[in-house]
Amino acid sequence: MPQQQPLKTAMPTPHVVIIGAGFGGLTAAQALRKAPVRVTIVDRTNHHLFQPLLYQVAMAGLSPADIAAPIRSILRNQKNVSVMLAEATGVDFANREVLLGEQRLAYDYLLLATGGRTSYFGHDEWEQFAPGLKDLDDAVEIRRRVLMAFEAAEKESNPQRRKELLTFVVVGGGPTGVELAGSIAELAKFVLARDFRTIDPEAAEILLLEGGEKILASFTPDLSESALRQLTALGVRVRTQAQVTGIDETGVQLGDEKIKAATVIWGAGVRATALTASLSVETDRAGRVIVEQDLSLPSQPNVFAIGDMTLFLQDGKPLPGVSPVAMQMGENVARNIQRDLKSKPRENFVYTDKGSMATIGRKAAIAHVGKLKLSGFPAWLFWLGLHIFFLIGFRNRFAVLFNWAWSYFTYERGARLITGRRLSLRPRKKIVETAVQREGEYKVN
Amino acid sequence: MPQQQPLKTAMPTPHVVIIGAGFGGLTAAQALRKAPVRVTIVDRTNHHLFQPLLYQVAMAGLSPADIAAPIRSILRNQKNVSVMLAEATGVDFANREVLLGEQRLAYDYLLLATGGRTSYFGHDEWEQFAPGLKDLDDAVEIRRRVLMAFEAAEKESNPQRRKELLTFVVVGGGPTGVELAGSIAELAKFVLARDFRTIDPEAAEILLLEGGEKILASFTPDLSESALRQLTALGVRVRTQAQVTGIDETGVQLGDEKIKAATVIWGAGVRATALTASLSVETDRAGRVIVEQDLSLPSQPNVFAIGDMTLFLQDGKPLPGVSPVAMQMGENVARNIQRDLKSKPRENFVYTDKGSMATIGRKAAIAHVGKLKLSGFPAWLFWLGLHIFFLIGFRNRFAVLFNWAWSYFTYERGARLITGRRLSLRPRKKIVETAVQREGEYKVN
Repeated sequence: MPQQQPLKTAMPTPHVVIIGAGFGGLTAAQALRKAPVRVTIVDRTNHHLFQPLLYQVAMAGLSPADIAAPIRSILRNQKNVSVMLAEATGVDFANREVLLGEQRLAYDYLLLATGGRTSYFGHDEWEQFAPGLKDLDDAVEIRRRVLMAFEAAEKESNPQRRKELLTFVVVGGGPTGVELAGSIAELAKFVLARDFRTIDPEAAEILLLEGGEKILASFTPDLSESALRQLTALGVRVRTQAQVTGIDETGVQLGDEKIKAATVIWGAGVRATALTASLSVETDRAGRVIVEQDLSLPSQPNVFAIGDMTLFLQDGKPLPGVSPVAMQMGENVARNIQRDLKSKPRENFVYTDKGSMATIGRKAAIAHVGKLKLSGFPAWLFWLGLHIFFLIGFRNRFAVLFNWAWSYFTYERGARLITGRRLSLRPRKKIVETAVQREGEYKVN
Repeated sequence: MPQQQPLKTAMPTPHVVIIGAGFGGLTAAQALRKAPVRVTIVDRTNHHLFQPLLYQVAMAGLSPADIAAPIRSILRNQKNVSVMLAEATGVDFANREVLLGEQRLAYDYLLLATGGRTSYFGHDEWEQFAPGLKDLDDAVEIRRRVLMAFEAAEKESNPQRRKELLTFVVVGGGPTGVELAGSIAELAKFVLARDFRTIDPEAAEILLLEGGEKILASFTPDLSESALRQLTALGVRVRTQAQVTGIDETGVQLGDEKIKAATVIWGAGVRATALTASLSVETDRAGRVIVEQDLSLPSQPNVFAIGDMTLFLQDGKPLPGVSPVAMQMGENVARNIQRDLKSKPRENFVYTDKGSMATIGRKAAIAHVGKLKLSGFPAWLFWLGLHIFFLIGFRNRFAVLFNWAWSYFTYERGARLITGRRLSLRPRKKIVETAVQREGEYKVN
């Protein structure tokens, strides 16, 4: 494995190490396709995840394999790339080596693109009661909890307890929270309604709690209001200025008010991964690295950071944590590495906003593209087409389209499996990482 | 939930409780479709599993959702059935109640159909090093281990250790072991071969260990030999009369001989579920209930047991633990319950053997149907058609067909995901149930 040895010979092919095969890292690797470099892309999973559809796995609409593709397969035909399954634990800037547990990997250029993790704003003890949605394991866990709540309600004879089992609280009125709330409502109303004998899944109460004044606050007021109307039509009860002060196995505390609910899902906060804390560079409160205009780290010109793990101000405002930002950043870094090798000056990064959208449910969405504002069915079609188009790999694109067409016409969900050897509703204990708080688009408390 | 209360009124509709929604239990429930009874089917998962294709999930060919369907959906249109997600922990014969943890469920007729679990022949300590293949969680765990072994080999610079990582041992030369060994070989040869840079997945060594004289011993000698030839052509090394005496994290012990291997999969033994031990009825060494000719328990005429959890002798030989036996048993019990209600005498159970088959890989299989013996591609086509035909639900049938066609023409596998938050190769600790040994078709040690 020559690419794993520190470089000793004179004038070798420069080695670019990319940590993370999300949208940013993968785009950078692909943009270096024809560059005279060796690329090693390191990820702690073996797959690239199409994160915008993760909520569909959580809500049993799609299978994990529909929205994920092995990184090795995606990059199979790119000869200058090696893929490594490993977790980066730190960087030795002095020796230009990435630490992968006990292994070391030498680099000439390093691109950090490790993305974000769920943030509980300093309340990591909430995690076990209110899982977030960041990877496939999270999605399968949320799917398990939601389906188990309906199953437990079917067996429950105490009406009060049954009501709690059929109460679903989603915390955070950003895109993730809105998607989750909308799709729980649809799952209950269209999919499960026919399958239960004792309970009426349509009687399920879905509550979306937002700490700020409105949901989807990054959109224009009219689109945000349209989203609110569409959610309400689906049966979701939206509460704004709802400050969550506590979460436990019985439900959510809002100041003096208690909302009893068996299922709470956290869609509120994002923070940078633990790696950033080990870098000894300046970060914001959410642990995001503050990068230079060319996306390099201060005083480390050969090390770049992109995507959700970075704080980049443009026109005085931080760029949002969305995939187009990460992808454009990845392209910029790839271009600048090639300019370095030709001894040309680097180009500063400038984000081009091509629009934004949020989906609410079947035939329900909002979109803002250039001067065009869409709502409802047209916005949903636009969202659907774009997401299928960008899904990696023909097979996945086809499978997703088929699954969607199938559930659209039959109101059936193909991936309604409860897996994971847990029959009880008791919360799962997870390893809780050190949290860093985030100030940003999702305000909760 | 009236069906959960003990019956108090005179002449109510008889309540049939079925424990287990596998092939046997589900067939019985469906066969009672028009009977004047209320049926409650209880399962510890929410899905019926098409177990014959479980090895395809373990080998990344299919997604869990492709081979499983929610029990509620399958039985949605059968008005006299309720579905309950719960685990049966015992039976109170005197009060005619099934114990579901702290809950009790009254029955007039009880059908036990809880199937089998993996048996380690008294060596439960082997389980953590050599997982068996009985449910979706097992399949995903085996998939994780196999894919992780290739990933770890790609990073490994020590040639000896790399060889160990690329050695896969399957214990047990019955149908499950043969399927697993054949499909690991295919995964390495056709699917992964293109995706790795440092290692050559084709160099993987796949060993199938059988304790008896030949593999697939329940088939005729010529078919068994054909299977051996087909496996060998795929690159699997078959060793018969190989008595496993130990398994640990370094590999498998065969008497004085040590086979070093990072991945060991157990395809050898089956035992009845823990429930049978709680029944205080006579069982064989594998914990299987010895039933009467009408499949009722001795001295409990209203309680039946069917499928893998039973020992039923026909022509002096125990019936094999395969789905046709369980399904025919389920039909027999449903018929006898209806005969009881019409005060007709019960019919003894007689199994009609419609043939048997085993699959080895792409285009490789053996089948014995009536006087017809098939081998290779014709047998495989036969196997494929039959399995797709019997898969429950149109959607799954279509998805499976599509996934197979896709991997057939592209040599691609759609479900190659490593999930489960574990990056290391260290064995998973599971709750080990009390084992009961089995004498039967799989002989290992």
